[in-house]
Amino acid sequence: MTSCIFCKIIKKEIPATVIYEDTNFLAFLDVRPLSPGHALVIPKKHYRWVWEVTNVGEYFEAVSKIATVLQKAFKQPAIHAKIVGEEVEHAHIWLYPDPKSTKGDKEDFEGNKKKILEAAIK
Amino acid sequence: MTSCIFCKIIKKEIPATVIYEDTNFLAFLDVRPLSPGHALVIPKKHYRWVWEVTNVGEYFEAVSKIATVLQKAFKQPAIHAKIVGEEVEHAHIWLYPDPKSTKGDKEDFEGNKKKILEAAIK
Repeated sequence: MTSCIFCKIIKKEIPATVIYEDTNFLAFLDVRPLSPGHALVIPKKHYRWVWEVTNVGEYFEAVSKIATVLQKAFKQPAIHAKIVGEEVEHAHIWLYPDPKSTKGDKEDFEGNKKKILEAAIK
Repeated sequence: MTSCIFCKIIKKEIPATVIYEDTNFLAFLDVRPLSPGHALVIPKKHYRWVWEVTNVGEYFEAVSKIATVLQKAFKQPAIHAKIVGEEVEHAHIWLYPDPKSTKGDKEDFEGNKKKILEAAIK
């Protein structure tokens, strides 16, 4: 969709701190994070709701893979996820380390990206 | 796990308003619902975190199927999901129609179960 902000991020027309990308899905850090490493995981194809995504199993395999990396990167077993979908009308899943007990600066996007990429490679 | 309340629900040792069951997953209505039809979807095998579930793709295919049924049952496109995992230490996903705009009595468990099963069969 041409007017969709997430579609623009996918097409690299708008910058974002991308932490994961495969053929069908993309994850980037939320600009208004609840905790360090707070990511948005989206399908590259435009869907209104998560429940319309046809390859929803693959979608959550990607989400789960990223959650496991966040656990390692922020030394935090509790990774929360949330699906609401009101703010932007492109299917998206919030994924974020427990805000109550995760240490670090949530606004340090480049530093948090570095932590995530390093944890992914281990 | 013998002391786990969700494992007891799976073994039918504790009653629950079950709305979905397959080989690996079970869904039942939350006793403290945020909205009518608020369900908990759990794996039958005991895992601490959603992100440890090995067949996570299948897990979310079941979640998505149930979400689609909730959309029809409560005439509500916005089905929220939440993964936190603090209350009970058995992987679980909250799935609930948008509390702000879903009509009906959230405490009418049997009535809501009936709506869900009728929507599933359509």
